[in-house]
Amino acid sequence: MAIGGAEDKFRDRVILSRFVEMAGGPSARIVILPTASSLPGAGQLYETVFTELGAESATILTIDTRDDADDDGLVELVQDSTGIFLTGGNQVRIAAMLGGTRVASALNARSLQGVPVAGTSAGASVLSAIMVAGGRAGATPKRQLARMAPGLGLIDSVIIDQHFRERNRVGRLVTMVSYNPGLLGLGIDEDTAAIIMPDGLFEVVGRGSVLVVDGSQMTSDVFSGLDRQPVTVGNVTIHYVAAGSCFDLEQRKVTIWRKESRTRRAAQ
Amino acid sequence: MAIGGAEDKFRDRVILSRFVEMAGGPSARIVILPTASSLPGAGQLYETVFTELGAESATILTIDTRDDADDDGLVELVQDSTGIFLTGGNQVRIAAMLGGTRVASALNARSLQGVPVAGTSAGASVLSAIMVAGGRAGATPKRQLARMAPGLGLIDSVIIDQHFRERNRVGRLVTMVSYNPGLLGLGIDEDTAAIIMPDGLFEVVGRGSVLVVDGSQMTSDVFSGLDRQPVTVGNVTIHYVAAGSCFDLEQRKVTIWRKESRTRRAAQ
Repeated sequence: MAIGGAEDKFRDRVILSRFVEMAGGPSARIVILPTASSLPGAGQLYETVFTELGAESATILTIDTRDDADDDGLVELVQDSTGIFLTGGNQVRIAAMLGGTRVASALNARSLQGVPVAGTSAGASVLSAIMVAGGRAGATPKRQLARMAPGLGLIDSVIIDQHFRERNRVGRLVTMVSYNPGLLGLGIDEDTAAIIMPDGLFEVVGRGSVLVVDGSQMTSDVFSGLDRQPVTVGNVTIHYVAAGSCFDLEQRKVTIWRKESRTRRAAQ
Repeated sequence: MAIGGAEDKFRDRVILSRFVEMAGGPSARIVILPTASSLPGAGQLYETVFTELGAESATILTIDTRDDADDDGLVELVQDSTGIFLTGGNQVRIAAMLGGTRVASALNARSLQGVPVAGTSAGASVLSAIMVAGGRAGATPKRQLARMAPGLGLIDSVIIDQHFRERNRVGRLVTMVSYNPGLLGLGIDEDTAAIIMPDGLFEVVGRGSVLVVDGSQMTSDVFSGLDRQPVTVGNVTIHYVAAGSCFDLEQRKVTIWRKESRTRRAAQ
């Protein structure tokens, strides 16, 4: 579950309660990794929210060094969890701290066993094998907009950007896809999540939408010109997937069209 | 020539000098229509610039009522011109003032005879048959982002938005295209112009790029849901066309890849 950041924690909590439900509801044992953030107490609000939403337990794993990330006790907590949550902060911090450690392996193993792993903001970006490491805002693709780095690799073949419309990151995502059009770009708005299932289908929940950038037919001159010059990029296929709709990452198309909102509308 | 607004008037003046050159250079007789703006003196800076760039004449046509727009003298000036320039302001003002008048007919006739017509900002939007009339910024398509109205109709089959990346208007353009995917959306950045030729090819000049939104394969649920809800839009083809590149509006693809910048780069 990749969340675009700034998800509602106080009102409907549509996204976070969906996560608790996926983690087992009343029998959910959730571990929270606030590693992306260097602030003390970063995971505490989530601890409270998950408990309020009925989880059996919500435990913060404090990992401030790479040694922490090899600790037996923490590894066991991950192995025993039924839901894993990565907070926001800096995705390079989380990758640099966890990459190659036993906690990272346990996290990957739990994910493969079907345990839901959710990340918000930086925690969403780090889910993919190649992630955005930084860059600039802007609607028009330029080389200087994008820097990339290796993420945790729970999801292949996508690159995830967040706070998407709020921080105007279209140009950066298209630039990243143009570097390797084999990757599918996912741009997730705030208070919006893509729930990516093992069969390659994702459903959108929340207030905004997810922009999918498909570069498989793309041609670009990203390799020429200067870093700060606009890049010419032709033939990009995009899809805006709003709450209630589903997208098939294999077929690269929208498969279900807004179920919820239709119902909601009919009720008015 | 559709300009995205805020074109350079003081330094290289790449766009405006290209316009003067197209209008005949030293024999250019340019008329300036500041009708989009309700401010007095709106066209004066252009009068100065076009004269400095070597035009034979640059004349402001003051049209403040629909009667002005039927005036014999003004109509003759348009008929005698070798270049027509529409300033920025409010595109609804210019359409409401000129639509159906003799000046509008003369303008259309001159355009068909091959006289270059340039518009910047509001003046660019009003060139098409259907134009953006207002709306809101935002990266995610929603019905409330777009209001449309009839423009002057010098160009069919496109809808032109301006100040494009600067005002974050991607969502509004995609929404407009989703209303009628037969139209091609052109989103033009500031200090950037699309020079649209009679054969349906356009070249980009200036500092930014032009986003082409092709909805011919698009599916959307723009007709359902609420005005303020994100719309699900699948299978949109987009092209970012930077300076020096050309796009074929008929074939709907990039045809020439950045000539200028390659040269510039080779020279470094």
